[in-house]
Amino acid sequence: MAEVKASNILITGANRGLGLEMVKQLSENSCPNQHVFATCRDPEGPRSEALRELAKKYPSVITIIRLDADDPCSIKESAKKVGALLGANGLNLLVNNAAILARGIIKTSQAEDMKNSFNTNVIGPLLIIQEYLPYLQTAAKASGTPGMSSNKAAIINISTLGGSMTKMPAMFSQFPVLPYCVSKAGFNMLTVLAAEEVKGDEILCMVLHPGWVKTDLGGKNATLEPKESVEGMLRVIGGLTEKEHGGFLDYTGATLPW
Amino acid sequence: MAEVKASNILITGANRGLGLEMVKQLSENSCPNQHVFATCRDPEGPRSEALRELAKKYPSVITIIRLDADDPCSIKESAKKVGALLGANGLNLLVNNAAILARGIIKTSQAEDMKNSFNTNVIGPLLIIQEYLPYLQTAAKASGTPGMSSNKAAIINISTLGGSMTKMPAMFSQFPVLPYCVSKAGFNMLTVLAAEEVKGDEILCMVLHPGWVKTDLGGKNATLEPKESVEGMLRVIGGLTEKEHGGFLDYTGATLPW
Ligand SMILES: NC(=O)c1ccc[n+]([C@@H]2O[C@H](COP(=O)([O-])OP(=O)(O)OC[C@H]3O[C@@H](n4cnc5c(N)ncnc54)[C@H](OP(=O)(O)O)[C@@H]3O)[C@@H](O)[C@H]2O)c1
Ligand SMILES: NC(=O)c1ccc[n+]([C@@H]2O[C@H](COP(=O)([O-])OP(=O)(O)OC[C@H]3O[C@@H](n4cnc5c(N)ncnc54)[C@H](OP(=O)(O)O)[C@@H]3O)[C@@H](O)[C@H]2O)c1
Repeated sequence: MAEVKASNILITGANRGLGLEMVKQLSENSCPNQHVFATCRDPEGPRSEALRELAKKYPSVITIIRLDADDPCSIKESAKKVGALLGANGLNLLVNNAAILARGIIKTSQAEDMKNSFNTNVIGPLLIIQEYLPYLQTAAKASGTPGMSSNKAAIINISTLGGSMTKMPAMFSQFPVLPYCVSKAGFNMLTVLAAEEVKGDEILCMVLHPGWVKTDLGGKNATLEPKESVEGMLRVIGGLTEKEHGGFLDYTGATLPW
Repeated sequence: MAEVKASNILITGANRGLGLEMVKQLSENSCPNQHVFATCRDPEGPRSEALRELAKKYPSVITIIRLDADDPCSIKESAKKVGALLGANGLNLLVNNAAILARGIIKTSQAEDMKNSFNTNVIGPLLIIQEYLPYLQTAAKASGTPGMSSNKAAIINISTLGGSMTKMPAMFSQFPVLPYCVSKAGFNMLTVLAAEEVKGDEILCMVLHPGWVKTDLGGKNATLEPKESVEGMLRVIGGLTEKEHGGFLDYTGATLPW
């Protein structure tokens, strides 16, 4: 059961996979006045049908917003729209979940795949944080409680154990996805520097690894169902304090090495 | 004094800063039959004058080769030229030293600077490793000695403590260079995955941090002179064994955390 009590939540890549499951669980267990901005790059397209169905079922909880992490204009426009809906309460929880996976080893990785992975998985989240930071600051100020929590104001970056310099080499033959891993290591750095920059605002910021999950990205051989991964992640997110600020946890709450 | 006994050495960004100092020290202390391919993006331009002077002084040691890390064609062409000169001995030591530094914090970092830093500091070295790997494999096979060393076959990636998730946050207010740090964290991941991929070929691969050095990149307030940093780095490189394969050391030989 979701234990996230944040009022205003924004999730990227919410039309399928872990993002969609997160919107689903939050909606099913929503607190009064909880609102989820479920963003995706093509709200009207066939890939967002399941999200549209979900929004029909929970119309007071879910608002679908167009946001393409590769398109700076769409990021800016999404922030304008969301900002207008948020009003004085600000945004409590930003979940950077959208990502792409490109395969390759040293011998085979293509420059194009390296660039695309870096654009979507690193530059996108940077621009998203830039645009939504004022709303997170508003929420932090409006909360009136000291310290850090995901109910007050938080940036949760969904990364991967594949971004761990310590753990990834031993997994490389099983997961030959170099462009993805390189981008996620960069994303982890982005997160720890963001944590450093926003700590004065009491905005919590950390990296979360969902486990290996059966989604289009994780594939059929993955060990977890989206339900279990997202239940775990929401439990972890709901329980975060300043102790985990700038940290790297998995969906069970275990700390991972960089 | 340089203790690097590798026969054929290639260094990127060899026209100024640490790359130039490395060519200088290697030339001053060169072993018989030692050869340095000093690469830079504009061998005839004014920024390469000091390198040209050095090559005039040590004509049997230094060959200047054009290599622009941003230009895949120039990387391929350089490998063809160097390959023809190497003959049957292969390349013993590849030093990925060239890099650019872009400034910014979360609030101010520009997408363009993120892209350019990633191109030069990560994709460039990837393509360079791809092109030169056959020559490193040749050298490893030709050596006839078991195990790993920089005299046999090695890729040394010059990164930075700024790419350490553990250490960088505390240094961020003094060094607000987010695009650089994000790219170097990605470069560190590239290195550990390369290490994993080439270990079967007995090619040593690791990350080296030069310290904070007075160069155009390091600035005037840096604590080290290029001479001291490069003396240290060459000592470390000369002494590497399989124990340091996939590792992260500084110019004194101390191990750094990711
Ligand atoms: N599944 C795993 O085993 C696993 C393991 C470790 C980490 N993760 C991380 O978990 C997160 C979610 O992964 P997942 O397994 O749910 O992947 P997924 O099923 O492939 O879903 C990816 C989501 O990201 C969206 N997306 C991709 N590019 C986008 C862009 N430019 N703009 C906006 N949205 C974009 C996709 O939208 P479209 O439908 O428009 O493509 C989709 O909604 C990712 O950050 C991933 O790295 C997953
Ligand atoms: N200095 C420090 O304090 C410090 C600290 C940590 C790590 N490092 C690392 O040490 C390495 C050398 O830095 P440095 O201090 O010597 O820097 P530098 O004085 O600024 O020299 C940088 C070198 O890289 C070359 N370069 C840049 N872009 C290139 C490209 N696209 N293709 C080919 N060459 C290119 C430059 O050539 P042009 O003349 O053509 O621009 C120059 O030769 C870098 O990897 C840096 O990240 C330095």
